Amino acid sequence: MAKPKKTPRPKAETPKGFRDYFGPEVTGRKAMLDAIARVYHLYGFEALETSAVETVEALGKFLPDVDRPNEGVFAWQEGEDEGKGDWLALRYDLTAPLARVAAQYRNDLPSPYRRYAMGPVWRNEKPGPGRFRQFYQCDADTVGAASVAADAEICAMLADTLEAVGIPRGDYIVRVNNRKVLNGVLEVAGLLDPNDPEAHEAERGIVLRAIDKLDRLGPDGVRALLGAGRKDESGDFTKGAGLSDAAADVVMGFMDARRDTGAATCARLRDLVGGSAVGAEGVAELQEIEALLTALGYGPDRIVIDPSVVRGLGYYTGPVFEAELTFEITDEDGRPRQFGSVAGGGRYDDLVKRFTGQAVPATGVSIGVDRLLAALRAKGRMDDRAAGPVVVTVMDRDRMAAYQAMVSELRAAGIRAEVYLGNPKNFGNQLKYADKRNSPVAIIEGSDEAARGVVQVKDLILGAQIAENASLEEWKSRPSQVEVARGALVDEVRAILAQHGLGD
Amino acid sequence: MAKPKKTPRPKAETPKGFRDYFGPEVTGRKAMLDAIARVYHLYGFEALETSAVETVEALGKFLPDVDRPNEGVFAWQEGEDEGKGDWLALRYDLTAPLARVAAQYRNDLPSPYRRYAMGPVWRNEKPGPGRFRQFYQCDADTVGAASVAADAEICAMLADTLEAVGIPRGDYIVRVNNRKVLNGVLEVAGLLDPNDPEAHEAERGIVLRAIDKLDRLGPDGVRALLGAGRKDESGDFTKGAGLSDAAADVVMGFMDARRDTGAATCARLRDLVGGSAVGAEGVAELQEIEALLTALGYGPDRIVIDPSVVRGLGYYTGPVFEAELTFEITDEDGRPRQFGSVAGGGRYDDLVKRFTGQAVPATGVSIGVDRLLAALRAKGRMDDRAAGPVVVTVMDRDRMAAYQAMVSELRAAGIRAEVYLGNPKNFGNQLKYADKRNSPVAIIEGSDEAARGVVQVKDLILGAQIAENASLEEWKSRPSQVEVARGALVDEVRAILAQHGLGD
Repeated sequence: MAKPKKTPRPKAETPKGFRDYFGPEVTGRKAMLDAIARVYHLYGFEALETSAVETVEALGKFLPDVDRPNEGVFAWQEGEDEGKGDWLALRYDLTAPLARVAAQYRNDLPSPYRRYAMGPVWRNEKPGPGRFRQFYQCDADTVGAASVAADAEICAMLADTLEAVGIPRGDYIVRVNNRKVLNGVLEVAGLLDPNDPEAHEAERGIVLRAIDKLDRLGPDGVRALLGAGRKDESGDFTKGAGLSDAAADVVMGFMDARRDTGAATCARLRDLVGGSAVGAEGVAELQEIEALLTALGYGPDRIVIDPSVVRGLGYYTGPVFEAELTFEITDEDGRPRQFGSVAGGGRYDDLVKRFTGQAVPATGVSIGVDRLLAALRAKGRMDDRAAGPVVVTVMDRDRMAAYQAMVSELRAAGIRAEVYLGNPKNFGNQLKYADKRNSPVAIIEGSDEAARGVVQVKDLILGAQIAENASLEEWKSRPSQVEVARGALVDEVRAILAQHGLGD
Repeated sequence: MAKPKKTPRPKAETPKGFRDYFGPEVTGRKAMLDAIARVYHLYGFEALETSAVETVEALGKFLPDVDRPNEGVFAWQEGEDEGKGDWLALRYDLTAPLARVAAQYRNDLPSPYRRYAMGPVWRNEKPGPGRFRQFYQCDADTVGAASVAADAEICAMLADTLEAVGIPRGDYIVRVNNRKVLNGVLEVAGLLDPNDPEAHEAERGIVLRAIDKLDRLGPDGVRALLGAGRKDESGDFTKGAGLSDAAADVVMGFMDARRDTGAATCARLRDLVGGSAVGAEGVAELQEIEALLTALGYGPDRIVIDPSVVRGLGYYTGPVFEAELTFEITDEDGRPRQFGSVAGGGRYDDLVKRFTGQAVPATGVSIGVDRLLAALRAKGRMDDRAAGPVVVTVMDRDRMAAYQAMVSELRAAGIRAEVYLGNPKNFGNQLKYADKRNSPVAIIEGSDEAARGVVQVKDLILGAQIAENASLEEWKSRPSQVEVARGALVDEVRAILAQHGLGD
């Protein structure tokens, strides 16, 4: 009789909103991270890896959805007794840790400090379809460069990077805007007073988030949020910024200010910001970025000035940019839609100042690696079925050392190989295993073969093709399996792999 | 006048026990992880990446230091109200998540399931010098293979891996033991009753941990822990297992059972386990592993049977193994000592059973990547000063587009390059920056050079050599700086890099 259980069995599940990545999902992402890092490195950026855990104090509160109750981070308190230790949290991006590093090592780092970083970040958000609470980012930032040449460079590098990971020119666009222009517009709209910059902060936040949702809500939805507010499909009401119609017109005009050329867009923006000094400064910066990029050959087929880009994060202070994939994919409901944003960034001159009290100019970009992978997958540009190992089957349990010697030889020749290590009793299971592993070749050596000094080499790829198409006669002739001398094993396998384009 | 501060400035610090990794520390580790993954992949293992966060329930409690109050993990509770949500935690190793995956996807995964995984793990332990609360592991495991051929293979792969990352043969040893032999010894010592396997569990834990500390405590210290207990240098008393002298003799004899050959060691172990069935089974398994490895050419210069290895983790059920680096390094106090363990693993047939109720045989190894890197660094085998980018200096702020065009050309030729993006006013700062970045070459183009269609190319490596050794006359002739036509810029830089062995 079974003993009474002491504890119930644990559930074999990831926590909600987390997932596992298998085989080619892992190696495909790694290949993309490697490709991105190569471009960042070529541009002179140095690697930095901070820990996943930071103090809540150092991270600060800059997540877009500040209206959520749990503030979006996974946090806990140190120590055994509540209320005593530091509050720690998982990083929610790679920028906040960089600001901490730039402050902590400010006397030792080169200035400008140009670094790239990659790795998972965590958001304590409500998970949804395709929306996970751990995802990868891959960032590059320049800390200590006040010139917008640094911003222009980041935009150019972003375009280069997208092409390096397999997004051809024409399938992406980098859009550039400037928060200073937006601030100029807010001044004109009466929401920003240069002499009292903290007044109307809440309303400005509402405007910012409304503009950022233009894609999703459309102009009417944004317009409602600029005024009294908006009721969504579920009936929930979001309070608006309370702008007058005239002020809302200015903001709406800003989002709609994109013209055919960067020069024309900048001219329109200059009109909109009127007498605002910060607005004029922002327009001048955009013109400088435009001029630098044009000189380097990054035309509007790759990078455009587009005032509808604002970026949700609260910490941006100057140029902001966003990379969007422009091709259509089919969404979950079978409808075509543009893939949308895969990277974004901008200038954040005050993040380091939080720590040191001294302003440190900084700008950078963050690529949403998992979204970019999803895009390539949607376009069929990811090879998610990598070749498995050659499987040496086990016909005779006592000859395990001989089978291990075979895989040893294959590996020494650089060929991925393994002995079947499950229960060898049922030979069919061994071939099913090889099939599940997507193995190109199986090796068979029973006592008869061993006595004769030969092995059977089974071409599983050819075998699968024959099984799909062949007549009974062809099937019986089994040309996919050949007998070779034991000494010719490695050469035969190498030849089969080469036939299928799987050689070195 | 400054405004009163609203909040005090956050401290720019990592949490205690965490650290940052810069430049070559990151890329050096990445190169090592890549090298390890190549070997694992060659052996037929597939990549798996689980999330950093698991439910506490799924992780279970298997950390060695079970006597600590906080149980060694970073954990927090989901949801806004205390007492309602799941408890989540950062993974403390890569084995517990694998057991969860093997259970969760048991109907979909190939069997045996062979996977490798790499990434950080977190331990909520007291930090110390060189002891961090986040560190990297790189694991390979075979789930669903009952045969000790799987264990033997892991040992062979571990030896191959160490050589692949730069530990030459002779500088490491893989030591193999078997928990079943230990259990046989515990039976003989009266601490394990096959008919009541849960009796004496606490005492067995004490014995296990005592043996695991042999290196640190020496035979006398271990002997004390087997008996009444031990008082350490600080005066703290650790309770012992309470074994009789005769029983303690058997355990001490076990640790000391290693002989010149694996066969002799196995013979001695067979004596020690006497009539214990599980003990005899364990010895037979060790003999089989030894025979397989010998047949494959892994002799005692690489892998040995060594009964003093037990591994601290509680979940091992059969063979256990450990890789040790045998060369001496100089410790913090300037004393030579052996570097010690860098990898370990073993068979854990009950971890998946926790979830499913059905025993699933499994075995694997975990490499402590950060320790291995520290070892290579201690031996001077890590190149921690990688070449920086070519730096194009800024003599004339208005010619930024021309400088950007230079780096553009250099990058297109595959040469790492950047424009100096700090404040260009002080030219000395630009050269100091290039020095701090370890740049091989600086480019200088003032208005004079621009007018003449030339650039100055400064060989900073040669320059540094001259600065160290040259006479004043040599110094003045400045042969480290040459003027070339603007069109010859890329060729000249490439030639200088090649001279210093920095070409492609």
